[in-house]
Amino acid sequence: MLARYLPIFEWGRTYDRKVLSNDLMAAVIVTIMLIPQSLAYALLAGLPPVVGLYASILPLVLYAIFGTSRTLAVGPVAVISLMTASAAGAVADQGTAQYLEAAVTLAMLSGVMLVILGLLRAGFLANLLSHPVISGFITASGILIATSQLKHILGVSAGGDNWPEMLGALAGVITQTNVWTFGIGISATLFLFWVRKGAKPALQAIGLPERAAEMTAKAGPVAAVALTILAVLAFDLDQRGVNLVGAIPQGLPPFAVPSTDIALIEKLWVPALLISIIGFVESVSVAQTLAAKRRQRIAPDQELVGLGAANIASAFSGGYPVTGGFARSAVNFDAGAQTPAAGAFTAVGIALATLFLTPLLFSLPIATLAATIIVAVLSLVDLKTPIRLWRYSKADFAAHIATTAVTLIAGVELGVIAGVAVGLLLYLWRASRPHAAIVGRVPETEHFRNVERHEVFTLPHVLSIRIDEALTYLNARWLEEYVLEQVADRPPVRHVILMCSAVNEVDASGLESLEAINHRLGDGGIGLHLSEVKGPVMDRIKRTHFLEELNGKVFLSQDRAFAEVAKDTGEPPEPVDHYMARGLI
Amino acid sequence: MLARYLPIFEWGRTYDRKVLSNDLMAAVIVTIMLIPQSLAYALLAGLPPVVGLYASILPLVLYAIFGTSRTLAVGPVAVISLMTASAAGAVADQGTAQYLEAAVTLAMLSGVMLVILGLLRAGFLANLLSHPVISGFITASGILIATSQLKHILGVSAGGDNWPEMLGALAGVITQTNVWTFGIGISATLFLFWVRKGAKPALQAIGLPERAAEMTAKAGPVAAVALTILAVLAFDLDQRGVNLVGAIPQGLPPFAVPSTDIALIEKLWVPALLISIIGFVESVSVAQTLAAKRRQRIAPDQELVGLGAANIASAFSGGYPVTGGFARSAVNFDAGAQTPAAGAFTAVGIALATLFLTPLLFSLPIATLAATIIVAVLSLVDLKTPIRLWRYSKADFAAHIATTAVTLIAGVELGVIAGVAVGLLLYLWRASRPHAAIVGRVPETEHFRNVERHEVFTLPHVLSIRIDEALTYLNARWLEEYVLEQVADRPPVRHVILMCSAVNEVDASGLESLEAINHRLGDGGIGLHLSEVKGPVMDRIKRTHFLEELNGKVFLSQDRAFAEVAKDTGEPPEPVDHYMARGLI
Repeated sequence: MLARYLPIFEWGRTYDRKVLSNDLMAAVIVTIMLIPQSLAYALLAGLPPVVGLYASILPLVLYAIFGTSRTLAVGPVAVISLMTASAAGAVADQGTAQYLEAAVTLAMLSGVMLVILGLLRAGFLANLLSHPVISGFITASGILIATSQLKHILGVSAGGDNWPEMLGALAGVITQTNVWTFGIGISATLFLFWVRKGAKPALQAIGLPERAAEMTAKAGPVAAVALTILAVLAFDLDQRGVNLVGAIPQGLPPFAVPSTDIALIEKLWVPALLISIIGFVESVSVAQTLAAKRRQRIAPDQELVGLGAANIASAFSGGYPVTGGFARSAVNFDAGAQTPAAGAFTAVGIALATLFLTPLLFSLPIATLAATIIVAVLSLVDLKTPIRLWRYSKADFAAHIATTAVTLIAGVELGVIAGVAVGLLLYLWRASRPHAAIVGRVPETEHFRNVERHEVFTLPHVLSIRIDEALTYLNARWLEEYVLEQVADRPPVRHVILMCSAVNEVDASGLESLEAINHRLGDGGIGLHLSEVKGPVMDRIKRTHFLEELNGKVFLSQDRAFAEVAKDTGEPPEPVDHYMARGLI
Repeated sequence: MLARYLPIFEWGRTYDRKVLSNDLMAAVIVTIMLIPQSLAYALLAGLPPVVGLYASILPLVLYAIFGTSRTLAVGPVAVISLMTASAAGAVADQGTAQYLEAAVTLAMLSGVMLVILGLLRAGFLANLLSHPVISGFITASGILIATSQLKHILGVSAGGDNWPEMLGALAGVITQTNVWTFGIGISATLFLFWVRKGAKPALQAIGLPERAAEMTAKAGPVAAVALTILAVLAFDLDQRGVNLVGAIPQGLPPFAVPSTDIALIEKLWVPALLISIIGFVESVSVAQTLAAKRRQRIAPDQELVGLGAANIASAFSGGYPVTGGFARSAVNFDAGAQTPAAGAFTAVGIALATLFLTPLLFSLPIATLAATIIVAVLSLVDLKTPIRLWRYSKADFAAHIATTAVTLIAGVELGVIAGVAVGLLLYLWRASRPHAAIVGRVPETEHFRNVERHEVFTLPHVLSIRIDEALTYLNARWLEEYVLEQVADRPPVRHVILMCSAVNEVDASGLESLEAINHRLGDGGIGLHLSEVKGPVMDRIKRTHFLEELNGKVFLSQDRAFAEVAKDTGEPPEPVDHYMARGLI
């Protein structure tokens, strides 16, 4: 019981020296990778770089206590940073105390919401975001993020909350490009792109073993940081208009009390909810992928609690919304992390960096951080998915494209909402016009299939209809119309068998429709039979008067129903011997 | 084609003298019933009584041209009047020109929305309102409406948009009750209640034939109007503080140009949409019920156009939102109306009344109209439905109660929204945790059922799982977890057969989960087979690489799959002869 709510008690019991050394090793590698990433994502969120470091300390410790994934690494991530910038930007200007307060409040609200959703076991809400919607959102966010960083590469000032605005603002100031900044920015970008593909083979070529080469290549962003700092110092680039990170406050995160300003909370709760859901979905996807590789399991409802605790911790230590990120978790996993303790050790690493390393970053060009972001997010842009979706399902394609387009044109919040809305509408539309088939018996079997797709046997007096959907309020009206229309089209019909093998549920509205159909068919002297009704559905129907009023019977199988009804009509089924042989007629 | 968009061309072709006399007869009866009802509902909507008459003229003619129901009678109805009062009351005070303008604008917006939804063939959106939600909403509205009229029965002033407010306001002023008004009000209420049940037998007892007695009883409200007017005149009740209808402007409806004030439209579009949807659902339910009795059909998408045209006509003639009402349509049907022409004749009757009869209504007490409303709406209150729903389905019960409670406490608009939201959330929650069953073969048949409910035959090396839900993004995560967990719990399993007889759809997210399951089972050397995949589902899967990568086969029937896989494991199925006899092993 305790282990369910505090997973630390589960893995903590078997913790030993070997696991410790693996976790420590992973923590060192992740720490090195996280320092430039945390600074860069804070920049993307429009916050002072140190806030990214703050958000990478306490949250990791809290997730280690409450989270269920062994290898997930939480902290600032690209998409959530972009959403934070959009939400905080709507209530205050970047650089003001109000802006920082809004970011901290977002973390607090998001944390509280996640914990509440977790305690309500409402992890299923994350299902509202389908894979096509998520991938459309991530692609569009990647494009937005990369575009938002171009201004830092060019050394100009430009704003914009969506793609058309950003491109317009950039076009207006492109002539003011600072060549020194652009030189640093473009070199860092090209270097980082090369590192992704070319560094590992190059390091192997100079004799490093494969694994060491792979890990060293992950430190590419650190190399870019070091090299560009040296370039700034060597050529006095601060005198030539290159923007630098400047002084980062040294010391541990402050203890901050999040805002309790109701007016601010009213403005921020919707974006906080979206941040919570997107963050949760991203984190759970990453955690599940990694857990599956080692045949471990995660508990989605407890993950909500873990992420919520991490966000509350972030708010109390002056940070902004965090979640489990793909890149950092994959590095943590590959580096051999075995328990969430690796996350706690990473937190110690970042805390030490915050205490002692920040003066070294004074001369780091902002353009280098922008390059780190651009290279990281462009890998998120996935143009193959829409093609695959178009081929497989037009509805999924529509949801994907709607999400991508609305995100690009109207920003991240409306993008997510549009994706969920389009997905739901299409789902409800399909559920309201379900598939149904007139079925007949496949020769020499007891199996019944669609008369339009298979060579099957039917009888003129018997109409067998297979309903391919749960009978719910969404299609109750359709059901009545469909069945009565089919009967009206076939005057000889004297028995209707509804084959319910695919009817997974009958709600109150569906039952009313069945009653209406039964009543209407009864008026015309036509029997209504049900076959293959599922156990849970039958249990509920038995609690009503429906079976007493039914003009027919309920059969265990469609085959039994067909044989019995055929006998009643006096028509020997063809081939007769199929049934004769089994003593059914 | 023309008849599809202008149904008048269909019934118009066969119109003859006999149909004409039936329609005229029905029109006279409906006109007599409609005059007090139209005045009363305008009062409920907070509008001058004459607006109710205006809303009962042109809209009927337009519906006769564009509507598909032969017997639906459109005009002001109770629930829509209440919603109009709530929406218009939010932007202006009752009695002002702005309030009237808001009501007219609601009719215009609602008309335009209905026509657009009709042209988009979006009638399916009405499915979002389930029977339990509608019945909860109608019950709560009935209670709200009856309560809102108590002030007129007592002769006091009191406001309130929801039940607690109304009761509070009434409690504060109950001591100011005007005894004369109360006398008129309570007598009219008791008389009208008696008319509903007792008038028909009483009239039959004095010698009227059954049908004539029934029709005469429908004129009960007219009798109440006449009697109370006489009482006012006889006892000079206008001198004793009894509120009267007073002067009603004589003449045909004015031609009005609806407002194009964007600020007003922005405030009213949400209530207008809710009015449209509620009005449409009420109207279609009534139309379908009546059409079914005469084996006629209605076309829901064209009904949207018909109701839209009626509302636009209402707006242009100074009226307010209208829809097809149950009481008036039932009277129209019972009185023998055969075509929508009866509606047009009713319009002429109301127009004549507006021209010539309104001076007679000068001394009509408001309390009489309030009594008419109370008696009409209390029949809408249905307390049996929640009991029936509780027994049948807790989810439907929850949606019903949520709608009733929110409507009573927070008003009609939030009530509808809450009902739709709760219904959807519960639907999505169920879809995200579907039912699935481990199945085995029922002895001596080819039929497979749940091992927990039936005595069935299974094999230790073969796991047959029947998934009772479409595989969509709502349950993609669940599917992966469920299948892998079942396999993990049964170490001897070497083949998994997913029986897809109830899988009505596989969307892109569902396919990704199937791919992941296939991949994961393949790693463990376990075969994944599919059986009874539906035609439309298979068509789509064939467009992907899934079948090439599948570690197993797709079988037409579960029985074939089980036999083949059993043969492969080398275990002869028990009883062996079942398969041997059919040459399967």
